[in-house]
Amino acid sequence: MNRMTEGANVRLPLPPAMLVRLGELFGERLSTISAMREHHGRDASSYDPMPPDAVVFAESTEDVVALVRLCNEYQVPLIPFGSGTSLEGHVLALHGGISVDLSRMNRMLAIHAEDLTATVQTGVTRKQLNHEIKDSGLFFPIDPGADASIGGMAATRASGTNAVRYGSMRENTLALTVATADGRIIKTGTRARKSSAGYDLTRIFVGSEGTLGIITEVTVKLYAQPEAISAAVCSFQTIGDAVNALIQTIQLGVPVAGVELLDENGVRAINAHSKLTLPEQPLLLFEFHGSEHGVKEQAQTVQEVVAEHRATGFEWATRPEDRSRLWAARHDAYFALLQLRPGSRAISTDCCVPISRLAECILDTKADCEANGLVYSIIGHVGDGNFHTQMLVDPNSEADIARAEGVNARMVSRAIAMDGTCTGEHGVGLHKIDFLIEEHGDEAIATMRALKHAFDPKNIMNPGKIIRW
Amino acid sequence: MNRMTEGANVRLPLPPAMLVRLGELFGERLSTISAMREHHGRDASSYDPMPPDAVVFAESTEDVVALVRLCNEYQVPLIPFGSGTSLEGHVLALHGGISVDLSRMNRMLAIHAEDLTATVQTGVTRKQLNHEIKDSGLFFPIDPGADASIGGMAATRASGTNAVRYGSMRENTLALTVATADGRIIKTGTRARKSSAGYDLTRIFVGSEGTLGIITEVTVKLYAQPEAISAAVCSFQTIGDAVNALIQTIQLGVPVAGVELLDENGVRAINAHSKLTLPEQPLLLFEFHGSEHGVKEQAQTVQEVVAEHRATGFEWATRPEDRSRLWAARHDAYFALLQLRPGSRAISTDCCVPISRLAECILDTKADCEANGLVYSIIGHVGDGNFHTQMLVDPNSEADIARAEGVNARMVSRAIAMDGTCTGEHGVGLHKIDFLIEEHGDEAIATMRALKHAFDPKNIMNPGKIIRW
Repeated sequence: MNRMTEGANVRLPLPPAMLVRLGELFGERLSTISAMREHHGRDASSYDPMPPDAVVFAESTEDVVALVRLCNEYQVPLIPFGSGTSLEGHVLALHGGISVDLSRMNRMLAIHAEDLTATVQTGVTRKQLNHEIKDSGLFFPIDPGADASIGGMAATRASGTNAVRYGSMRENTLALTVATADGRIIKTGTRARKSSAGYDLTRIFVGSEGTLGIITEVTVKLYAQPEAISAAVCSFQTIGDAVNALIQTIQLGVPVAGVELLDENGVRAINAHSKLTLPEQPLLLFEFHGSEHGVKEQAQTVQEVVAEHRATGFEWATRPEDRSRLWAARHDAYFALLQLRPGSRAISTDCCVPISRLAECILDTKADCEANGLVYSIIGHVGDGNFHTQMLVDPNSEADIARAEGVNARMVSRAIAMDGTCTGEHGVGLHKIDFLIEEHGDEAIATMRALKHAFDPKNIMNPGKIIRW
Repeated sequence: MNRMTEGANVRLPLPPAMLVRLGELFGERLSTISAMREHHGRDASSYDPMPPDAVVFAESTEDVVALVRLCNEYQVPLIPFGSGTSLEGHVLALHGGISVDLSRMNRMLAIHAEDLTATVQTGVTRKQLNHEIKDSGLFFPIDPGADASIGGMAATRASGTNAVRYGSMRENTLALTVATADGRIIKTGTRARKSSAGYDLTRIFVGSEGTLGIITEVTVKLYAQPEAISAAVCSFQTIGDAVNALIQTIQLGVPVAGVELLDENGVRAINAHSKLTLPEQPLLLFEFHGSEHGVKEQAQTVQEVVAEHRATGFEWATRPEDRSRLWAARHDAYFALLQLRPGSRAISTDCCVPISRLAECILDTKADCEANGLVYSIIGHVGDGNFHTQMLVDPNSEADIARAEGVNARMVSRAIAMDGTCTGEHGVGLHKIDFLIEEHGDEAIATMRALKHAFDPKNIMNPGKIIRW
């Protein structure tokens, strides 16, 4: 009997013989204690934990392969765990099984400064990577907020504030080492910056959320640290004005490195949390990278554009401390919101739409939040058309949760109807499986299923995520 | 019996019943005349034609689906044909079958200027697209040289001179409509600029060369036309100097829109063909996009950098006519080379390496060409580490061809040994199947094969390309 193909939530205990062999292979790096399992059965989503039956700490690709082979032999689920910061239930052990903790795979394998590439073990975090390369004049731009592992970021196709300029993990992953479901090791690419050599295995695994194989090493692109960085902030009468200013900025070809929208609730929260006095109106926060003159020119162009859209309080911050203060406030926005209602939990969701539909999608979603009496904020990486809705709920109130989930469902349907996507950067995990079907349709889902069945015929790789078997 | 799984070059005639049904479906849009079949059995490679048994002119996605269903029913190969400009034997009918000519699928479906996206039928060419959008202030940057169809460019993961700034079709394809091997229509994505929604079907089909399905519609990213464009050219004592100057330029974060290297043979050929008097030494040709001040600043930085590497004759061309003259010469380099030896044919191949290895890879390849007495040139999109070797051969001389193929094989092995790829932008087609194995290894090829078998279980989609069954 295959526990994973019999429907959701079928859990069988680990075969005792397998547990013995796990102990032989991993010794003290195998844990079945409750607190450890509990920790590995939750992520940063609002789901209650679903703990695995055991946790194994891997230290090498070979460890992962040995584990995959055992799981393959016993048909037991295997769930990769990086930093536990995913947002849609990605690491929950829906059918039990083994959580493989990859955080000890944190070695830098190679930095090639001339080639602007770094190869790291999967558990290296983005902050660690940037710390290691900071003296080389290079940096790794992708910043999803949390200090996620690079492997986890690849697995969820993460992006963040700088994607409008530098792309997401889709564009910035050159090659992966992957342990396949049948226990082979494959390299999906090379360090060449482009390639037309066959099927794009790299991008098959980027965003596959551990359901097709386990990423053990990642080669990413690096970038020259810009000569100058500056930030600008301004407030708008309406979200429509803010988005129209943004559209015009992009159409003028201004190469903004980041552009964030906060609605008035987001501004209120960071004012309270970070002791700022920003007007409690829709706000755009820009980041510019370039030469000294280039960032000045970008800021000037943006200043002219936003003025045409009735912006006020345009402030240009070139000093690192001013810039950091603004962006730090932005990065704290999630926690700032939580403090507006102590004891609450945030349901955080995202979607992404063509930018011409962005204002409408945000405004309709705000109206829905308000009609449902929610404490919420909307914050977006709006250069890409991507925004997040955070809704505070009482974790003990089913009605509260149902209201928030209703808003989420309608927001996603709205985005899909606008030729957008159900998630711009969070991934599908558990939470968006039905929305993925809504977005792609049964025929495309059938094609995704064919891929899953071909790559993981026993459904042992993070079963129950992205698509149902 | 399945002709395509019985080994190479097994050809069976089309089933007469199928031919009848094709005639009923497509009328005069079905052709079996020899000249038409011959035309569809060749591309821009040096292969002799391998004509299909029939040619069908599709005018819609529904046409393609009807054709796929027939081919699926009768287990007959189906080969997509766009503009016939591929370079590695992609469209040759190795096992006979039907060539589906997509050039009549040349309708613009939607231009969304605010969103910087265009959706086109697969047969729209890149020049047609740029012509259609030129008044919108936008452009489509990918330029592989030939006026290829957008669908064909997606299918081969094409790029070209501007990829160093704008990426390849991998980065610039947002969504595809695809006819699957079993005759379903799927949409692989949306118009959202980024997405974490499930498996990356778009990038599974980008670069799949018609072997997994047939692309019928493409949504691509567009860009704001730069306020200013300028070009610069300079000559170097050695290829090593040129590459070192380039590496330094990139490490300084200069956002060059294109940077082409011509070896002394390439310069000699374009001098003769385009009546130029460039020094017959290695040459770098730069293109800069940006604001008026920005392109000036980029050119100044580059001028300082190349001077440190003993460059001479630095010339900065801001006037469109000067710029066009230089870049037109570059674009004619392939034909210019052919004229150095009338009656010859060019074997053109490409590879891509980490840029730190580029000079060494080029120099070793040049030495090999010279040791083999070849008339050749090397021209590269070197900002990506990608270069082309064109070798002139007497098409009637087996010895000539064998010498050139020997150089090609050693160049590709050299690139792979340097952690590069067997093709940066040409694709695999027929010509690089063994090199793909050399690059990826048997385990990764097994994973590619699993994908092919899952998506095209009867091996009817362009069989014999990319991988052997």
